[in-house]
Amino acid sequence: MEANLDDQAGEGLGYVMTQLLAAGAYDVYFTSIQMKKNRPAIKLSVLSAPSDRLALTKLILAETSTIGVRYQTWHRTIMRRHFVTATTPYGPVKIKVATYDGIIKKTPEYADCASLARIQQVPLMMVYQAALAALEQLDEEG
Amino acid sequence: MEANLDDQAGEGLGYVMTQLLAAGAYDVYFTSIQMKKNRPAIKLSVLSAPSDRLALTKLILAETSTIGVRYQTWHRTIMRRHFVTATTPYGPVKIKVATYDGIIKKTPEYADCASLARIQQVPLMMVYQAALAALEQLDEEG
Amino acid sequence: MEANLDDQAGEGLGYVMTQLLAAGAYDVYFTSIQMKKNRPAIKLSVLSAPSDRLALTKLILAETSTIGVRYQTWHRTIMRRHFVTATTPYGPVKIKVATYDGIIKKTPEYADCASLARIQQVPLMMVYQAALAALEQLDEEG
Amino acid sequence: MEANLDDQAGEGLGYVMTQLLAAGAYDVYFTSIQMKKNRPAIKLSVLSAPSDRLALTKLILAETSTIGVRYQTWHRTIMRRHFVTATTPYGPVKIKVATYDGIIKKTPEYADCASLARIQQVPLMMVYQAALAALEQLDEEG
Amino acid sequence: MEANLDDQAGEGLGYVMTQLLAAGAYDVYFTSIQMKKNRPAIKLSVLSAPSDRLALTKLILAETSTIGVRYQTWHRTIMRRHFVTATTPYGPVKIKVATYDGIIKKTPEYADCASLARIQQVPLMMVYQAALAALEQLDEEG
Amino acid sequence: MEANLDDQAGEGLGYVMTQLLAAGAYDVYFTSIQMKKNRPAIKLSVLSAPSDRLALTKLILAETSTIGVRYQTWHRTIMRRHFVTATTPYGPVKIKVATYDGIIKKTPEYADCASLARIQQVPLMMVYQAALAALEQLDEEG
Ligand code: NI
Ligand code: NI
Ligand code: NI
Ligand code: NI
Ligand code: NI
Ligand code: NI
Ligand code: NI
Ligand code: NI
Ligand code: NI
Ligand code: NI
Ligand code: NI
Ligand code: NI
Repeated sequence: MEANLDDQAGEGLGYVMTQLLAAGAYDVYFTSIQMKKNRPAIKLSVLSAPSDRLALTKLILAETSTIGVRYQTWHRTIMRRHFVTATTPYGPVKIKVATYDGIIKKTPEYADCASLARIQQVPLMMVYQAALAALEQLDEEG
Repeated sequence: MEANLDDQAGEGLGYVMTQLLAAGAYDVYFTSIQMKKNRPAIKLSVLSAPSDRLALTKLILAETSTIGVRYQTWHRTIMRRHFVTATTPYGPVKIKVATYDGIIKKTPEYADCASLARIQQVPLMMVYQAALAALEQLDEEG
Repeated sequence: MEANLDDQAGEGLGYVMTQLLAAGAYDVYFTSIQMKKNRPAIKLSVLSAPSDRLALTKLILAETSTIGVRYQTWHRTIMRRHFVTATTPYGPVKIKVATYDGIIKKTPEYADCASLARIQQVPLMMVYQAALAALEQLDEEG
Repeated sequence: MEANLDDQAGEGLGYVMTQLLAAGAYDVYFTSIQMKKNRPAIKLSVLSAPSDRLALTKLILAETSTIGVRYQTWHRTIMRRHFVTATTPYGPVKIKVATYDGIIKKTPEYADCASLARIQQVPLMMVYQAALAALEQLDEEG
Repeated sequence: MEANLDDQAGEGLGYVMTQLLAAGAYDVYFTSIQMKKNRPAIKLSVLSAPSDRLALTKLILAETSTIGVRYQTWHRTIMRRHFVTATTPYGPVKIKVATYDGIIKKTPEYADCASLARIQQVPLMMVYQAALAALEQLDEEG
Repeated sequence: MEANLDDQAGEGLGYVMTQLLAAGAYDVYFTSIQMKKNRPAIKLSVLSAPSDRLALTKLILAETSTIGVRYQTWHRTIMRRHFVTATTPYGPVKIKVATYDGIIKKTPEYADCASLARIQQVPLMMVYQAALAALEQLDEEG
């Protein structure tokens, strides 16, 4: 789903992003664009389940200045995911294990690292690197 | 309709935007992108009626450096619109009333506010705020 | 204060913004830039009081991947501000009144409008427009 | 001169650009930035003579939502310029000849090429290329 | 093909671009976007033949932090191309001649101009302008 | 050092970046900006030693379409750096150790990881994560 917004201040857009995510959008993002009459503008993009499209469209029309929303269907290739826990010197961190056709990727959850960093008063980077080191210790299976 | 342009100066793109709008495009906008070989580039996007696609494609191929244009069909949800007039201390301002499934939005026309601001030698913001105040006085029906 | 970051994921940058604002920065913003070797990157900009510069520099060096921060002194022209309260059908909204050399600007506080919109379950735009209409009623003096 | 704007719609910014250029600014440009609270925003930059700074600052404060403008002094290295006329199959085109310490650059004026393209109903690129070919015929002196 | 990347540093993205082009993508480009939680991010876009889609998807999943890739089919209008050679004072330059339904465009190859500029130790702009002048001499047929 | 470029194609800018880096610039980056007359444009930024400023200015004036370059002096806070080597299952990787006033950061060199990834035919991310795990084993001193 997409809408071009040239008559909306940025402050309102931060609010709309929060609302769209709360209403079930998978993802919401802004792209800076340049429209006619020397107007800098924002393209609002929303990724959602087809069944949420109508409700999210109404939310965009009610909350933003746009009078039109355009949409399209995308196909998606998504990796399978599950979570394991790694132990770092700062505490436990959830690790997302994503797999697809022989590819295995493990990434520490930022939210976990960030909350440990806040509690332990250390830089987030240190927690994140420790989590990466710890997940190397985990067996392939995850 | 979209084309990526890495071998076209910005000056020429301002000219193309004007021409595409004159030729009937609904909307034309630029997105800054980053292409191979460290090249900053521009993605040109054009929204138009399907019946104008061929003529606008030829215009892009003739006026820009690209040798290819790609396109896709979008579905659109559009609010119904009509106009009413609000009276401000600076003069009359046209108000766009947009409605869709119970949603009603009223927005002052920028062009009207801007021309009043120029004539009355006041900041555009003051005229715009006055127009917003005046439209609050209008009945729901518009 | 500025730093170019080409070896830092966006997730970490959202965290840093929050920390810099908590540590007293006036303003923090990101600009997308394009660096060598086809790398999209982010320029982190921080506006602060001169007395906070050292602490904020250390925070950036500790929390981001950059190994250098550059800085400069800016002069500023700032409008004088005070706040008044306007009454809308949705509740009271704080209005920021900014003045400088004969210029008077009044703007509703977004945070107030947003919290009323949430409580009253109406679009933020309606509250904001109502606040603008209400502030037109206030006397010049504010 | 710079100001960050997160509470101003793009429509108003196109208007401000026109006004600042009319008021004597050398150059006005917008940069898309990302501010706190998920707000997309615009940084307005104005290059001007020091003697115009105060008037342009007041124009920004009056016409935009910002309550502060920051500024700095830049040094500049500028090429010397003069104009010659080249003859193309489509009509005469002004050529800007810029020189500095042994460097000579010649560039056709876009405005001239664009008006010939409109009159002759040919693509701007053809006129521009013809002008470049014609200027190769001009002697080094210009 | 598209993927949004908010947990990948720019350094890794330059590497991925090179790999995708080597694996047969027609074009690869980055767009700066703004995601939730104040995260600046990059949208990776890949244009390819349908037959390469699966291999390129696997490459993206293996080499980047994303766990999902979305895709769509575009229609394309492409100009027919052939190459001729123009003679400049700096050496021969390949000229791309693109044609479509009466439109003819000729553009010097940047790579050729750049290598002559390096060999002859002159600015690239001078070689490029000389090539444009030389191609005006070529007959319409190219 | 900065210059705004609205009459230069992206292809030429990739070339200029390479040349400026070869001529000794510390860093070169592009920012997308929006100039008058609906022109998308690029701001070229160059960071360099003061002693290289004149030569780099001449290079910009000779190689780009701009007729003016502006510059300013920045102060910089730079971390002290040295390198150590970590051993990963894929081979040795150089680790940059940066220190400043009690802050210690260790980051694997991307170039090293990338060349191991190419040789071993594994994703760059796996080599990078292995390098991060290996550097956790190094003693604080580096
Ligand atoms: Ni509008
Ligand atoms: Ni597992
Ligand atoms: Ni090209
Ligand atoms: Ni009505
Ligand atoms: Ni680096
Ligand atoms: Ni007051
Ligand atoms: Ni604000
Ligand atoms: Ni002359
Ligand atoms: Ni993530
Ligand atoms: Ni031919
Ligand atoms: Ni120009
Ligand atoms: Ni050491």
